[in-house]
Amino acid sequence: MRVGDRHYRSIWLADDGETVEIIDQTLLPHEFRIARLDSLEDAAVAIESMQVRGAPLIGATAAYGVALAMREGSDTGALERAVERLARTRPTAVNLLWALRRCREILSEVGDAERRDRAYALAGEICDEDVAINESIGIHGLAVFESIAAERAGEPIRVLTHCNAGWLATVDWGTALAPIYKAFDRGIPVHVWVDETRPRNQGASLTSWELASHGVSHDVIVDNAGGHLMREGLVDLVITGTDRVAANGDVCNKIGTYLKALAAVDNRIPFHVALPSPTIDWSISAGDEIPIEERSAEEVTHIWGLDDEGRRRRVRLTPSAASARNYGFDVTPARLVTGLITERGVCEATSEGLRSLFPSEKGRAG
Amino acid sequence: MRVGDRHYRSIWLADDGETVEIIDQTLLPHEFRIARLDSLEDAAVAIESMQVRGAPLIGATAAYGVALAMREGSDTGALERAVERLARTRPTAVNLLWALRRCREILSEVGDAERRDRAYALAGEICDEDVAINESIGIHGLAVFESIAAERAGEPIRVLTHCNAGWLATVDWGTALAPIYKAFDRGIPVHVWVDETRPRNQGASLTSWELASHGVSHDVIVDNAGGHLMREGLVDLVITGTDRVAANGDVCNKIGTYLKALAAVDNRIPFHVALPSPTIDWSISAGDEIPIEERSAEEVTHIWGLDDEGRRRRVRLTPSAASARNYGFDVTPARLVTGLITERGVCEATSEGLRSLFPSEKGRAG
Repeated sequence: MRVGDRHYRSIWLADDGETVEIIDQTLLPHEFRIARLDSLEDAAVAIESMQVRGAPLIGATAAYGVALAMREGSDTGALERAVERLARTRPTAVNLLWALRRCREILSEVGDAERRDRAYALAGEICDEDVAINESIGIHGLAVFESIAAERAGEPIRVLTHCNAGWLATVDWGTALAPIYKAFDRGIPVHVWVDETRPRNQGASLTSWELASHGVSHDVIVDNAGGHLMREGLVDLVITGTDRVAANGDVCNKIGTYLKALAAVDNRIPFHVALPSPTIDWSISAGDEIPIEERSAEEVTHIWGLDDEGRRRRVRLTPSAASARNYGFDVTPARLVTGLITERGVCEATSEGLRSLFPSEKGRAG
Repeated sequence: MRVGDRHYRSIWLADDGETVEIIDQTLLPHEFRIARLDSLEDAAVAIESMQVRGAPLIGATAAYGVALAMREGSDTGALERAVERLARTRPTAVNLLWALRRCREILSEVGDAERRDRAYALAGEICDEDVAINESIGIHGLAVFESIAAERAGEPIRVLTHCNAGWLATVDWGTALAPIYKAFDRGIPVHVWVDETRPRNQGASLTSWELASHGVSHDVIVDNAGGHLMREGLVDLVITGTDRVAANGDVCNKIGTYLKALAAVDNRIPFHVALPSPTIDWSISAGDEIPIEERSAEEVTHIWGLDDEGRRRRVRLTPSAASARNYGFDVTPARLVTGLITERGVCEATSEGLRSLFPSEKGRAG
């Protein structure tokens, strides 16, 4: 999407056709800096350090990580080692494993000499597919906005979102934000309530930066505020992304999503989840089976920001002796979800709903 | 309660018998510094700047603010001006208005010459009453802990709390934390999940500091995490304080409380609110009538912490162009509240429940 006058994706091949470039998302929103990935290890560290984050972008980066590894050696042992290294980078994102499985399947059937070129082509295909999928999510989500616009009589549609499920979390368009961009581009007035999304504040930093770069009206709020806004009638719609959806429609997403879903139901506000189909884990029948990543307590006790002299700086929020726990995700039961917005359309958050859009997955889920 | 080896209240008279001393809570948890209040204006600014916060402590500080004003001039005009100045400091806390009304009523019936001494005595009475009320809340809340302890078979009772409703928010003991201190002092094992409570992080800074000072086991979590903990069976009980309770049992408290109440109900976990009776606003029939304070957006876009060199420093979290909104409180409907823990006992969050404990208020509420 737009940054200044230029269009960017979140990951792309450099002019040399081999090096991979990304936007270093740990520096946003205060600094827009492009980072180069020259090796498998660069790609793995970019995922681990969250220079790239968001399930679809993690998958795309992993695919390019395999391609970068093939520059160093392209036999099947090197392929296995690359897949194994990348699979260890983040435990929750199903897209990561999906992309790696696809790389392994396709590349293991290719001769050693062709494997490198095929790996680059494959990573490019995965990126292009992600862009097409997300644009499709945007178009299907647009219908939800259009139906609400009819009731709002020209007043802005007030959308609450959590974390960053925008184009920075994907290759382009985003998932939860794709319908917002589509609506905005069609001239439907929109105002976005942006949950800051502690502890890593991806909403306050990334979603806010994205929306400002594209010109979409928004306000950052603390994660505590959404319930009050809904009770006051200031929210027409909630849309979030997801890291993994179980076959029954349970949604695993950034910690705090469940609380917003409860408030949406309590106030009869539609709660939609936008997802590309690779995010559906057909092998998991319900959300309780999804392992929840526990991350470093320092993300809770400390925070990064820009000091008055314009320098990035970390400050401690808690007493020096305080201990903290840091659960990365929660599960929103399908019963709280109004609809799942996928690249094939909008469905109910049920096994039947998902299977109606993805009938070929029926066997695996049964 | 304890700070190191010494017992402190949150407000007290200095040795000169006239100056008032407080703990400057804006510097906690990184620095324990005592501030002196020498004048009406000092007291008003201490409330406005949140050097003192928490409904009961605001009320006590306002009473001492009236006493400090009487040093400068003790005619009824000075009394009216002092009450009027202090009433403007914070819009939501009912204890503030309650304390000021009491000061005005009692002091307007006293001669000019005696007014100053009577004002000091009255402020002291208001403080002592608050301590007695809170200890009583602790004793009644202890019964809730004892009933859960029976089910936990020696394992710690896991309590989630929001914001700071500890002794720092009152004159001593606290409201939500009073039962926790009572249980801890009786040897009942307790572990507290401390919501950090953005935007001002009173949980991460004040509650964590209080509990550590008293030796109570706890972990700081982001406000997003409570729902996940409840779904995982890691919370036995939620207790919060409140800034104002309507006559029907609706609870106005720090923004985000409503979301935790929804999660507690969804997981069949008891959700209790601890309150001294001056917090009940019998003139308000339901929570929707309570005005919600909107505070500076800078509390959302910026945060204070301690940098690596040990200096207090403010950092910006959002892009420079980002706008933000900052609602201070929300209303938790009485239907979500398991019980109200008051100095007279525990009751249901209903008109009938409240009137059973406070029958003399029946007329006013009817």
